Amino acid sequence: MGVLETIPVLLSSSSSSSFLDTSTVIALTVFFALLCACIIIGHLLEENRWANESITALLLGLCCGVVVLLISKFHSSRILVFSEDLFFLYLLPPIIFNAGFQVKKKRFFKNFTTILLFGVVGTVISFCLISLGAYLLFKRIGVTSLDIQDYLAVGAILSATDSVCTLQVLNQDETPLLYSSVFGEGVVNDATSIVLFNAVQSLDVSNIDLLTALKLLGTFLYLFFTSTALGIAAGLISAYIIKTLYFGRHSTDREVALMMLMAYLSYVLAELLNLSGILTIFFCGIVMSHYTWHNVTESSRVTTKHAFATISFIAETFIFLYVGMDALDIDKWKSSKQGTSIAVSSTLFALVLVGRAAFVFPIANITNCIKKRPSTKIELRKQFIIWWAGIMRGAVTIALSYNQFANSDKTLTEDSALMITSTIIVFLFSTVVLGSITKPLIEAVLLRNAKPAHSDATDIPSLDDLQILFLENGDPSDQGGSNEPARRKGSLSLLISNPTSTVHYFWRKFDDKFMRPVFGGQGFVPFVPSSPTGAADPQTS
Amino acid sequence: MGVLETIPVLLSSSSSSSFLDTSTVIALTVFFALLCACIIIGHLLEENRWANESITALLLGLCCGVVVLLISKFHSSRILVFSEDLFFLYLLPPIIFNAGFQVKKKRFFKNFTTILLFGVVGTVISFCLISLGAYLLFKRIGVTSLDIQDYLAVGAILSATDSVCTLQVLNQDETPLLYSSVFGEGVVNDATSIVLFNAVQSLDVSNIDLLTALKLLGTFLYLFFTSTALGIAAGLISAYIIKTLYFGRHSTDREVALMMLMAYLSYVLAELLNLSGILTIFFCGIVMSHYTWHNVTESSRVTTKHAFATISFIAETFIFLYVGMDALDIDKWKSSKQGTSIAVSSTLFALVLVGRAAFVFPIANITNCIKKRPSTKIELRKQFIIWWAGIMRGAVTIALSYNQFANSDKTLTEDSALMITSTIIVFLFSTVVLGSITKPLIEAVLLRNAKPAHSDATDIPSLDDLQILFLENGDPSDQGGSNEPARRKGSLSLLISNPTSTVHYFWRKFDDKFMRPVFGGQGFVPFVPSSPTGAADPQTS
Repeated sequence: MGVLETIPVLLSSSSSSSFLDTSTVIALTVFFALLCACIIIGHLLEENRWANESITALLLGLCCGVVVLLISKFHSSRILVFSEDLFFLYLLPPIIFNAGFQVKKKRFFKNFTTILLFGVVGTVISFCLISLGAYLLFKRIGVTSLDIQDYLAVGAILSATDSVCTLQVLNQDETPLLYSSVFGEGVVNDATSIVLFNAVQSLDVSNIDLLTALKLLGTFLYLFFTSTALGIAAGLISAYIIKTLYFGRHSTDREVALMMLMAYLSYVLAELLNLSGILTIFFCGIVMSHYTWHNVTESSRVTTKHAFATISFIAETFIFLYVGMDALDIDKWKSSKQGTSIAVSSTLFALVLVGRAAFVFPIANITNCIKKRPSTKIELRKQFIIWWAGIMRGAVTIALSYNQFANSDKTLTEDSALMITSTIIVFLFSTVVLGSITKPLIEAVLLRNAKPAHSDATDIPSLDDLQILFLENGDPSDQGGSNEPARRKGSLSLLISNPTSTVHYFWRKFDDKFMRPVFGGQGFVPFVPSSPTGAADPQTS
Repeated sequence: MGVLETIPVLLSSSSSSSFLDTSTVIALTVFFALLCACIIIGHLLEENRWANESITALLLGLCCGVVVLLISKFHSSRILVFSEDLFFLYLLPPIIFNAGFQVKKKRFFKNFTTILLFGVVGTVISFCLISLGAYLLFKRIGVTSLDIQDYLAVGAILSATDSVCTLQVLNQDETPLLYSSVFGEGVVNDATSIVLFNAVQSLDVSNIDLLTALKLLGTFLYLFFTSTALGIAAGLISAYIIKTLYFGRHSTDREVALMMLMAYLSYVLAELLNLSGILTIFFCGIVMSHYTWHNVTESSRVTTKHAFATISFIAETFIFLYVGMDALDIDKWKSSKQGTSIAVSSTLFALVLVGRAAFVFPIANITNCIKKRPSTKIELRKQFIIWWAGIMRGAVTIALSYNQFANSDKTLTEDSALMITSTIIVFLFSTVVLGSITKPLIEAVLLRNAKPAHSDATDIPSLDDLQILFLENGDPSDQGGSNEPARRKGSLSLLISNPTSTVHYFWRKFDDKFMRPVFGGQGFVPFVPSSPTGAADPQTS
């Protein structure tokens, strides 16, 4: 009895002696409880037409923010302060890596030209239009203290799209061309807008002339290619190490650990070298799924495939929860006028809509003119879906906005607070309102004029055509080339009209002959017990 | 050309505009590169007699510390400051959870009495002896400024063992009783010493009497049972949710995510309630592997099994690397005298040896007297191995030592610095020197007097004996009970002499009848496609 009575006393006194900071533990407990709730609610709402995981997390975060606001008596709605380190170092890398790891490589590279046009050229157009529009319109609303660099930054910030909502609705097998365009654009757009933002921040705004624009272009291209090269190198090194040292012999956990660590290492290395970590880890993921993944044991393959997807899923949910909770931060709202805030965010949203329309429809129609086969053309309803998919703004926008307007000055100026709240309004409106009508809308647009499923499946002639086309270089056991010369003549025009597929064909030959024997890959790893499902690409098994 | 020339200029100017703190990125790059190196070197040294993964990581960390020391011209050897938050919030939980998740439950609970005796009673004995010894001896060396609480803390700090080295050498199948004793003691010891340390820190040292000792005992028992109950509850809730909501229908990633998040939630919740998170997450792991793991899809099972092991492996390597790098921190060594430091650490190490011998051999011999079957007794050479396994000191010791002596005061006093450096010396010596002779030593001890592999496998009579013993309650299809009464009489003494196995038998019956139908588990999950390997426990498949 005496022992039991002493417990409350001891407990109250021991609460101060814990190793851990109580507020950190509280924040972690709340966050992990909310994450669990998000997963369960998301699962229950899976068949719901209006909801999706992002919106659930966002709304749950908002609700929690309100509760904290009420508990703290309107002093603060935040449990954790939004940290760019957390976002750019720990949450974004697994998402982008998983995107690269699970991407359907064949489709991605088939649409590579389209993806680059939308993701790079389109983002740059959007960036220019939004910057220019903001520059011309903001002064009329009453925002005066921003300089040229701020306007350029606004352009870069609001060019970063978030196509998660649309991707959750689109079916990868029914509309592969559309899916890979939207998906690919999303990843390239993230990288482009972050690189643009970095370039803008490093810009000397005192004398803007043609040289500055050239510098911007030069930095951009330099970052793009070196980052990609670094990612490919990291992926190849991991493949080579795991293949040569034969890790599965001792432990499959070491293989998985090495893949995770090498991927992350490529990201931080890129950041250290001031390159774009996002591009690096994306290409590292692609190379790892093409080579490294085939060099590991069967159980490591299952583990990596699902573990990477799980970590990415948790990170994504965490971001939406986090941003939802942070949106109500009372300090930001106090220091910005409500009326102006709504005017600015409406202007920004209109600019986003126009900026996106200004490149989606022209680029789509230009590519349609170049392509000859009707099945590879992007119809108007698909152009609409591509346009729609890129309207939503996401966590990258929020993070860049904080970086530009919350960090540059020690104290939050009125206009900086205004820009942050306006960005949050655009983000919330586009994600919650437009996100919830995405599913019914896309279903309506696609079903209204449904065509057979294979209609957009082939961007190139079938692989058989190409095998015949290049039969002299192909596997001799494939076919006896009796009627080869006759066919070949007709195929030559095919070759010229399909440069992408030609590149793909030569890449496959190069891959089989030089790359796979060194770095491993499908069919080149004799010691791994192969199974029909396990030997396939991660996304197909 | 003009573009290329501008790149260096832009790079140097853009280095200041990166989102991320450069020093953080450098630290992460170095750490992840070293982690990769550890894995590769550890793999290459797998067959080496002297090396193991922990020592490799520790030495690599030391080397890196030296390099940093040289680069910084003896100003600092640390890239990151040792953070207890990092250790207790992010590195320790996955290790302990994985220990619970992969533990061979049957063997663990069969040896539960022995494990508790060694882990709880033994640790308390060791704690008392080390505290007393330090109190009596330190004043003669010249350490004068420590108070009673510090001495008690030293006892708790140096009671935390690290049996990783020994476990890497012991074979789970050849010497199961020994393995599960050493393994189980290790986990229970971690929890006990941390709980003791917490209790000591919350102690009012002004008036120490019998009541204080009773308070300590009361807190200890309260923490022990509530933490265990919380862990079991968290595990059961996760099993119930996943079973009822049938997560595998939509996504296997959600299952894996929920398991990870619920486990971590149980840890932070325990810490929030000032319980022992380690015990909680350990029992959560056990319950999850018994129920939840059987409710998920086949690929989730493979994923969780390997992903948890991988994360635990990375965390463990990270800790050794981290502590190795931190060991050379110049500030600590500057403010403590070298001679005294060696005297203190020698004294501490001698106390560790004596303190461990003082409970291992008596407890082992007492249990030997109680047990009647010779195969279940712990022979002298096995007692020696158990003693040896607990001599090594690990990361928990370092973390607790920092907590007591680096955080209590703002400036590091001479004696505090002395205690930290002495702890580091004990840690380094025991891990590097004793760790490297562990493998040859244990092989010599075990092989010198080798017996058939099954000799220590059975702590209880076989399950067949018990099924006959309790046949009236068992499955009627098992046997026709013709000679049952005759056998039963002889079995009754068996029942009395084997309380552990009786408990285990009734638990199995209870589990099958009440628990598994509600929470799922092996054989109670009709909707998961079962495969011969997949349906087994995580550790056996």
